[in-house]
Amino acid sequence: MAAKQAVQKVLIVGGVAGGASCAARLRRLSEAVQITILEKGPYVSFANCGLPYHIGGVIPEESSLLVASAAKFNNWFNVKVQENTEVVAIDRAARTITARGPGGEERHEYDALVLSPGAFAIKPPLPGIELPGIFQMKTIPDTRLVKDWIARTGAKSAAVVGGGFIGLEMAENLVHLGLETSVVEMLPQVMPPFDPEMAEPIHAHLRSKGVKLHLGDGVAGFEQAANGKGLAVKTQAGQAHAADLVMLVIGVRPEVGLAKAAGLDLGPRGGIKVDDGMRTSDPHIWAVGDAVEVEDFVTHQPALIPLAGPANRQGRIAADVIMGKEPSRFRGTQGTAVVGLFGMTAASTGASERTLKRVGTPYEKIYVHAANHAGYYPGAAPISLKLLFSPADGHVLGCQATGTVEGVEKRVDVIATIMQMGGTVFDMEEAELCYAPQYGSAKDVVNIAGMVAANVVRGDHPIAHWADHDWEAVAAGPDTAVIDVREPGELKATGSIPGALNLPISAIRNRLEEVPKGKKLFVHCAVGLRGYNVCRQLRLLGYDAVNLTGGWKTYQAVKAANLLPGGAANGAAKL
Amino acid sequence: MAAKQAVQKVLIVGGVAGGASCAARLRRLSEAVQITILEKGPYVSFANCGLPYHIGGVIPEESSLLVASAAKFNNWFNVKVQENTEVVAIDRAARTITARGPGGEERHEYDALVLSPGAFAIKPPLPGIELPGIFQMKTIPDTRLVKDWIARTGAKSAAVVGGGFIGLEMAENLVHLGLETSVVEMLPQVMPPFDPEMAEPIHAHLRSKGVKLHLGDGVAGFEQAANGKGLAVKTQAGQAHAADLVMLVIGVRPEVGLAKAAGLDLGPRGGIKVDDGMRTSDPHIWAVGDAVEVEDFVTHQPALIPLAGPANRQGRIAADVIMGKEPSRFRGTQGTAVVGLFGMTAASTGASERTLKRVGTPYEKIYVHAANHAGYYPGAAPISLKLLFSPADGHVLGCQATGTVEGVEKRVDVIATIMQMGGTVFDMEEAELCYAPQYGSAKDVVNIAGMVAANVVRGDHPIAHWADHDWEAVAAGPDTAVIDVREPGELKATGSIPGALNLPISAIRNRLEEVPKGKKLFVHCAVGLRGYNVCRQLRLLGYDAVNLTGGWKTYQAVKAANLLPGGAANGAAKL
Repeated sequence: MAAKQAVQKVLIVGGVAGGASCAARLRRLSEAVQITILEKGPYVSFANCGLPYHIGGVIPEESSLLVASAAKFNNWFNVKVQENTEVVAIDRAARTITARGPGGEERHEYDALVLSPGAFAIKPPLPGIELPGIFQMKTIPDTRLVKDWIARTGAKSAAVVGGGFIGLEMAENLVHLGLETSVVEMLPQVMPPFDPEMAEPIHAHLRSKGVKLHLGDGVAGFEQAANGKGLAVKTQAGQAHAADLVMLVIGVRPEVGLAKAAGLDLGPRGGIKVDDGMRTSDPHIWAVGDAVEVEDFVTHQPALIPLAGPANRQGRIAADVIMGKEPSRFRGTQGTAVVGLFGMTAASTGASERTLKRVGTPYEKIYVHAANHAGYYPGAAPISLKLLFSPADGHVLGCQATGTVEGVEKRVDVIATIMQMGGTVFDMEEAELCYAPQYGSAKDVVNIAGMVAANVVRGDHPIAHWADHDWEAVAAGPDTAVIDVREPGELKATGSIPGALNLPISAIRNRLEEVPKGKKLFVHCAVGLRGYNVCRQLRLLGYDAVNLTGGWKTYQAVKAANLLPGGAANGAAKL
Repeated sequence: MAAKQAVQKVLIVGGVAGGASCAARLRRLSEAVQITILEKGPYVSFANCGLPYHIGGVIPEESSLLVASAAKFNNWFNVKVQENTEVVAIDRAARTITARGPGGEERHEYDALVLSPGAFAIKPPLPGIELPGIFQMKTIPDTRLVKDWIARTGAKSAAVVGGGFIGLEMAENLVHLGLETSVVEMLPQVMPPFDPEMAEPIHAHLRSKGVKLHLGDGVAGFEQAANGKGLAVKTQAGQAHAADLVMLVIGVRPEVGLAKAAGLDLGPRGGIKVDDGMRTSDPHIWAVGDAVEVEDFVTHQPALIPLAGPANRQGRIAADVIMGKEPSRFRGTQGTAVVGLFGMTAASTGASERTLKRVGTPYEKIYVHAANHAGYYPGAAPISLKLLFSPADGHVLGCQATGTVEGVEKRVDVIATIMQMGGTVFDMEEAELCYAPQYGSAKDVVNIAGMVAANVVRGDHPIAHWADHDWEAVAAGPDTAVIDVREPGELKATGSIPGALNLPISAIRNRLEEVPKGKKLFVHCAVGLRGYNVCRQLRLLGYDAVNLTGGWKTYQAVKAANLLPGGAANGAAKL
C-alpha cells in the first residue's frame, strides 16, 4: 500500500469541500509533505450551498461565499493552490498528471493523488437549451450571469426546471426577488428523497407562497417567445410556460471524465468506486466528495450523495489513510438532508419507502403529527413525521419530516443519530431529550414516533394504511367497518369517509353497542392518538380493530398524492 | 411478584406527569382493571412547566395549563379521578390506603399502588418567611396568588430567591411584567448543572437584560421594609435587597412523607428507592416521578431528577410492569435539560465536571465556540459548548451549551442521544446531520466538538486548561512560553496574557525562528481552531506544544468565574 511508503507529494484535484478538508488535514499530519490543490474554477473552498441565497440577495456580498482563499491555504497550511487550472490527464504508471492553467500546460508528479472533482450540473441536449436566458448554477461566476441577466433584462418571471432541494431553494430566492416563479418537474412530486404523501405539504406550502408547480411533466425544449421577449418552456405534455429567466436545476452527475480516462473503476451508479478508506482501484489514487460512490448504510447499496458533510469527512479520511493513519474509515452515508422553504423546514434521513420497496427491504411505517413544543406555550404547530423501521426488530430505516415551525430538522438529527448508532424505535421511545415548553414536550416528537412504532413492533398496535384500501368499499363491506373517533365538529370541518361510523372517543364507552360485531374495524382519528386508544380498548374487548396511522391528516396527504385506490381512475383494492 | 397475579384495582397517588401517564398506559393494557387517581390538588395533569409563563402573561389563559381534565380521564380512559384528595396513610399489610377528600376520610383497597406524589418546594425556616408578599410556585393556585399580589399591590420590584432553571424562568417572566428583578443565590453561580465557567455567559446575558444577580450570598431572612411598603431580603453577608414581591424558588425535595411512614425504603439521596421496573421495596407498590431516586447512567449514582420527561416514561414503565408486560425497564437518566432566558438557550446533559470530580470518574474536557449555522448565511452566532469525555476511550460523559441563537438544544439532544446509545466522541465526529446554510454547517458543532475531542483521545491534540496555571508565570517561565496566534488587532480588542508571544497563524510560518526552543509551548487563539493548527505544526517540527482548548473566549469565562489561579487572591499554581 502506498500509505505505508513515504508520501512526499500529494496532488489534490478540486479544492472545494472534500479537497480543501483533505489538504488541511494532510498538513496537520505532516509538515514535510508537499500539498498542491489544482482547482479548475477561479476559487477554492467556496460556499456552493450559498449560491441560491446570493442570487436572492439574502447573502448580499459575493465575498461572503469565499470560505478560504488560496492565500490562506498558503499562509496557514503551506498548501499551494493553483486556481483556474484543469487537470486533463493522469499517467498512472508514471504517477504524473497533466494540468492546463493560466501558464499553459504542465506536468506534476505525485506519490498520492486525491480526486475531488465534484459533480456537474446536468444539461440535457434539448432543443433551445443554449438560448440566452437559460442558466445553470454551480459556481460563483454562474451567479453573476443570473444576477446580471435579471438586472439587464428586467426579468419579471422565472421558471425553475427541476424540483429537487436546490431547485426549490432557487425558486424561493427568485420569489424573494419579486419574480413570478414556476417549477417544472418531470416527477409528480418535488424533493425525490421524500415519499409522495410527505411531499404534499411542501407542494401546498409552495403554492401558498405563489410558486406555480407544474409536476409530472418533463421539459421538451425551449423557445424564444413569439414577441421576442422572454422564453417558453415547452413540456412533453405540450404545455408552454412563459418565463423571462430559466434556471436549469435538474440534478448533478459525478464528474468522472478524468477518472474514467485513467481507467479507474467506476461503480454501478456511475461514480468513482472507492473503499471505506476512500481508495480507488489505483493504490496511489484516492477520491472523495460528489464524484464518488459510497455505501448507503441503510440499504447497503452504492449511492451517489452530493452533500457537503460527507464530502468533508471523506476528505479527512483520505488524508488519514494517505498518511498511514489507520484505522480511519468512512462509515457510509444515510443521506441526511434539510431544506428551508418560505418558513417551512423539510428534512429527511435514511431510506424512503420508495427506496425500501426498490431494494426489497421489509419495512413498516407510521405517521405522527405532533406539536413542535408544548401545546400550551404560544406558537406550537405540528411537525408531520413519517418513520420507516424494521417490523421484525424495530431498527430505524429512515424518516421524513416537515413543518412550518422550529425543530423539524432537530428531530431528524436525533433520529439520524440513532440510526447511525444502530438504534431502534425502542431507543427513540426512551430518548431523553431537552424539554422546556418553548422547545419541546415532555413526550417529544421523537419519543411519540418511537412509542407508536414500538407499540407496532410489540404487536400492541396493529395498524393499517390509507393507501392500501378503497375506504368507501371498506365502510360498506359485509365484514369490515370504518370507525371515525373524532368529534362531530371535526368531521364537518374536514370531511369523512362515506359510510364510516362516527363514535367519538369521548362517547364510545357509552355507545359500545353501536360497534359492529364480527367485523374487522378500521379505526381512525385526526392524527392517530385517539385512534390508538380506541383500538386498544376494542382489542381488549375482543374486537379485531386496527388503527389508521397518521389519521385524517395523513389521509388528506395520501389523497392529494393520488395514492388512494378506489374511484374511477384507480379501481378498488380488495381487502 | 404482584405483577404475575391478577391485578384488579390500581390506585395512583398523584395525577400529574408520571401518575397520569401511568393511568393512561394501564388502561391501554387492560379494560378490566379498576384505575383510580387520587390527586391532592385541584387539578390532575396540569402543565407545571408552564407556571412561570402564565405568571408572566406569555401564556395568558390559565385554562391552557390544564392538559387533561378529570372528565377526560373518565370519558377516554374510564379512569376515576378524585381531586382535592390527599392520601394520608398506607396499610401495606391490608393493601389499603386512607384518603382525605371533600367527602371526608375513606379507605381504598388496592392490588397495586403507584406513588406519584411529586416533589415539594423547599421552604427553609428563615425569619420572616411567612410575611405577606413571599410566594412559592408549584401549583396553579400558587400562580393566582402571585398575579393577584402584583395586581393588588402594584408591585414594582421582585427578588427571586434561587438561581436554578425555574428561578431564572421566573425572573425572566417578572422582567417581562415590568418588575425590576433580582436573583439571590447562595452559590457563586446560577444553574447548578452547569460548571462555573459555562454559567458565566448566562450571568452576562441576564445582567444585559436588567436582572440584578446577587450570587454567593445566601438568604438569612426577610423583613418588612421600614416604610411598611415592600420587603427586604436579608442575606448572610449582611446585605438587604428591597423587593415588593419575593419568589422562593430554592429547589424541590421528593415528597416521601407517605412512603416513609409506610416503611418503604428510601435511597441515599432521600427519594423513594425503586428498581428499574419502578418497584419499591414493597412488591405491591410502585413509585415514579420526582419522588423517586433513579440511577444516573453516567455516574451510576442514585440521582434525584425532577423532570417531566423521565416522569412520563417511568409512569408508562410502572404500568407495563404492574400488568406483567415485561421486560420494560427504565434505562436511568442523564438529566437532559434546557432553559430559555431572554433569547438565550442553555442546555445540558449528563455529568458536569463538578460531578465527575465528586464521583472520581476520569475525564477530559474540551470547549468549542462554533457558529450555529454557516457563517456566510445571515444571523450566524456562536454556540459555546463544553464536552466531557473519557480520555481512555472517548465515551461521552456530558455536555453543556449556551448561545443566543437557534440550535443550542438541538446539539445537546444529538449528544444526549449518542450518550444514551453508549457512543463516543468518534461517533460525534462522524455524525451525519442535517445541513443547509440556515440550519447548520457541513461540519456541524457536534462534528467539530467530536473532532476536537477525538483528536485529543487519539493523542494528536494535546491540550491544556486555563484554570490549571498562572499564565503570567507561564509566559515568563524559564521552561515555558505562551504563544498567542491571533492577529494583532484581536489582541488589542480583547487583551492578552502579559508576556505572551504574538505569532499570528498567518505569519508564523515565516517567523519560526521566534518560536522559543526547548520550552513547553502553550498555544492559544480566540476559540481553539487556529491554536490547534499551529500546535500540530509545531509538534510535527519537534516542539512540545499544547493547545489551550476554547481559546481566549474560554479564558474570559474562566476568569469571570474566578477559576484562574494566580493574582493576589488565589496564589499562583506551579507547573
